[in-house]
Amino acid sequence: MNSLKIRFTENEMKNEKTPAEQLVFGTKFTDHMFVADYTEGTGWHDHRIVPYQALTLDPSASILHYGQTVFEGMKAYLSEDGIVRLFRPEQNMKRMNISADRLSMPQIEEELALEALKQLLEIDKEWIPKEQGTSLYIRPFMIATEAHLGVSASKTYTFIIIMSPVGSYYKEGIHPVKILVESEYVRAVAGGTGTAKTAGNYASSLKAQEVADREGYAQVLWLDGLERKYIEEVGSMNVFFKIDGEVVTPALNGSILDGITRKSIIELLKYWGVPITERKVSMEEIREAFLNGKLDEAFGTGTAAVISPIGELRWKGELFYVNNGETGELSQKLYETLTGIQRGVIEDPFGWVVELKK
Amino acid sequence: MNSLKIRFTENEMKNEKTPAEQLVFGTKFTDHMFVADYTEGTGWHDHRIVPYQALTLDPSASILHYGQTVFEGMKAYLSEDGIVRLFRPEQNMKRMNISADRLSMPQIEEELALEALKQLLEIDKEWIPKEQGTSLYIRPFMIATEAHLGVSASKTYTFIIIMSPVGSYYKEGIHPVKILVESEYVRAVAGGTGTAKTAGNYASSLKAQEVADREGYAQVLWLDGLERKYIEEVGSMNVFFKIDGEVVTPALNGSILDGITRKSIIELLKYWGVPITERKVSMEEIREAFLNGKLDEAFGTGTAAVISPIGELRWKGELFYVNNGETGELSQKLYETLTGIQRGVIEDPFGWVVELKK
Ligand SMILES: Cc1ncc(COP(=O)(O)O)c(C=O)c1O
Ligand SMILES: Cc1ncc(COP(=O)(O)O)c(C=O)c1O
Repeated sequence: MNSLKIRFTENEMKNEKTPAEQLVFGTKFTDHMFVADYTEGTGWHDHRIVPYQALTLDPSASILHYGQTVFEGMKAYLSEDGIVRLFRPEQNMKRMNISADRLSMPQIEEELALEALKQLLEIDKEWIPKEQGTSLYIRPFMIATEAHLGVSASKTYTFIIIMSPVGSYYKEGIHPVKILVESEYVRAVAGGTGTAKTAGNYASSLKAQEVADREGYAQVLWLDGLERKYIEEVGSMNVFFKIDGEVVTPALNGSILDGITRKSIIELLKYWGVPITERKVSMEEIREAFLNGKLDEAFGTGTAAVISPIGELRWKGELFYVNNGETGELSQKLYETLTGIQRGVIEDPFGWVVELKK
Repeated sequence: MNSLKIRFTENEMKNEKTPAEQLVFGTKFTDHMFVADYTEGTGWHDHRIVPYQALTLDPSASILHYGQTVFEGMKAYLSEDGIVRLFRPEQNMKRMNISADRLSMPQIEEELALEALKQLLEIDKEWIPKEQGTSLYIRPFMIATEAHLGVSASKTYTFIIIMSPVGSYYKEGIHPVKILVESEYVRAVAGGTGTAKTAGNYASSLKAQEVADREGYAQVLWLDGLERKYIEEVGSMNVFFKIDGEVVTPALNGSILDGITRKSIIELLKYWGVPITERKVSMEEIREAFLNGKLDEAFGTGTAAVISPIGELRWKGELFYVNNGETGELSQKLYETLTGIQRGVIEDPFGWVVELKK
C-alpha cells in the first residue's frame, strides 16, 4: 500500500449534481475516476486519479471482440454526521481477483485499489447523497486493451474505478416483486464463467430479461443448465427461501456468483441462531412447499437492492404466491439489519463496515 | 441498398504496409474503416468510411461492462489479374444478425453492410496482399455504446468494419496439429450463447487455451457442457472426423457455431458423393475408432485456416494418433478445393464467390 503512487489531476469543470429524487441508476458519474494501466512484463503502472473522461480504444482492442473484462459493484454511504462507510470492500477486491483469474487477466493490487478508492471517495465526497436510502454506487472494472485480433489473452489492461450517485432502490419502502422462472435460456454452467463477475454472463441474460419484461415480471429466476431443475440465481441476485421455518439457498456449485450480500446473510442468520442450509434447491421443492402452504418467504440478495422480496413465481404456467404477496418478517428484519449496519445506525458485530476518516 | 448513404473521408496519412512474410495476424490495419451508428427510435444513421482511428467510449459504456457485442470474420483475396474475391459474404452478414438477435442487439442492414464492405475494399484495395496464401481479414463488429450501468439492452450501438492484411496461415504448407480434449472448462451450453459469435464465448475459452499452450497443444477440443462426452468444436473451429470411410461432424445442437466453412464442406462432400453425417459424436467413439485403426482423418474448419488437420488428440491422459500424424487425403483435397475456389483458380459450381468489379 503506497498512497504516494497515485497521481492526482483535478477536474476544473465540476459537474452539476442531480437532486436525489431524480437520480437514475448508473447514468450520472462523479467528477473523477481512478485509472491504472497494466503491461505484461512491467505490471501495474501510472496509477492516477483524473477527471471523469472518455476512454480511447483501438477498434481492434480485445475487450471489444473477445470480452476479456471483469467488474465489481459496491456502495459508499454517507451518514448525517458526515462519516463515509463502505461495506466489506476488501471482499469485492478479492472477488475481482477470482474473476480475473477465470478470465486469464492479471491480478489487481487489492490493498492499493482499496486505498485508491478511499482517496477517490475523499475527493468526490460531495457526490455521496445523504438522503435515506441513497448511496454512491462504485464500479471498479478491468478491460483488455491490446490492439490485436488474435484470440489470446491481452498483453495490456486498464483498471478503472468510476462512481455514480444512486437514488433509493425502494422509493415506497421495500416491497415484493414477481419473478419468471426461465426454462429456455441458461445463465451459466459449471466449467463456464458463472462464478466470475464478467460481461458475457450479463450479455447472455438480456434475452430472457426481455421476455420477462414483456410479460410483466421484474426478473428471471435461472435454473441450472444441465437438468433445468435446480435454482441458481434471480436476475443478478442470489436467492433465499424460507420453507417450513428453515432458510435455504443454492450452494456455491461452480455456476453461481459468490455474492457478498449472500455471504453476509448466512453469517447473520447463523449469528441469530436461525437454521440456514446451503444446498441444491429444486423448483419442484418450491412448488410442493407452495402447495402445502409451507413457502413462507423468498427473496433475492445483492448490493443494489440488498433484499428484494419475491411475491410471486411463475414456472411452466403455474403461479406460486409467497406470503400473500407481502414482505415476510425475516426478509424485513434482514433488510433493516443489513442496511442499518451499512449506514452505521445499527451496531456491526462482525467488523464488516469500513469507516473513512473524516 | 443505397451507396449514396455512405460518406467518405479520406485518410491523408497513408500507413506503411508490412511485407507479406512479416505479417502477424490481426495487428496491422488498413487506412480506412466503415462506421455506422444506431439510436433506438431512429435506427441506423451516419454511415461513413473514415480514416482508421481510435474509438472514444464513456467509461460506463455498456460494451465494457455487460459485453453486448457481436462480430464476424471473413476474408478478401486478390488474384494475380487484380480481381478481388469474397467467399459467401452474405452468409457472414446473415449470421451477424442471428448473433445480434441472441444478444438483444438491433439487426444490421445486411445489403448495405455488404455494399459498404465493397466500397471499403475498393478504397483500400492496395492493402490486400497478393502472395500465395495471404489475404485481407475482414472484421465487422457491433458494440453497445450507451453510457449506463443498468443491466439492460443498450439504446445505442456502433457497427464497424476494420480490415487487416494477413500472411499465410501455413508457411510450410498445410500440416497437422496436436489437440487437447478439455475436461474441466466448458465453452457453451444449449440455452447459452454458443451459437452466436459474441465476446463472452471467447473470453471464457482463454483459460483452457492457456493450459493447452503450456502442455504443447495447439488448441483445445470442447466437449458438451452437460455430459462432457460429446464433441463440440476445436478451438474456434468446427470439427470433422473420417471414421471407417464415413465423414461425421457434430450436428448444430444449440451450443456450437454454424460455421460457414463447415456448411461449405458439407455441401462440397455431398456434391462429390462422399457420405457425410451431422450427428452427435462422442469421444468414446473416437477412442474406439483409434483403437480399431479406423480413425482415418480429423480436421478443424474455419475462415482463418480453412482446414486444420489434426494429427494427435489427448483425452484423459490417453493419446490418439490420426493418420500417422500426416495430413489425410480428404483433408488435403478439401483444403485445395476450397482455397482454390476462394482464389478463383478452381471453378465455383456453387456460386459462393463474389467478385468485385475491377
Ligand atoms: C450474477 C450476480 N449474482 C449475485 C449478485 C449479488 O452479489 P453481491 O451480493 O456481492 O452484490 C450479483 C451482483 O450484484 C450478480 O451480478
Ligand atoms: C467458435 C467458432 N467456431 C467455428 C468457427 C468457424 O466458422 P467459419 O467457418 O464461419 O469461419 C468460428 C469462426 O471462425 C468460431 O469462432
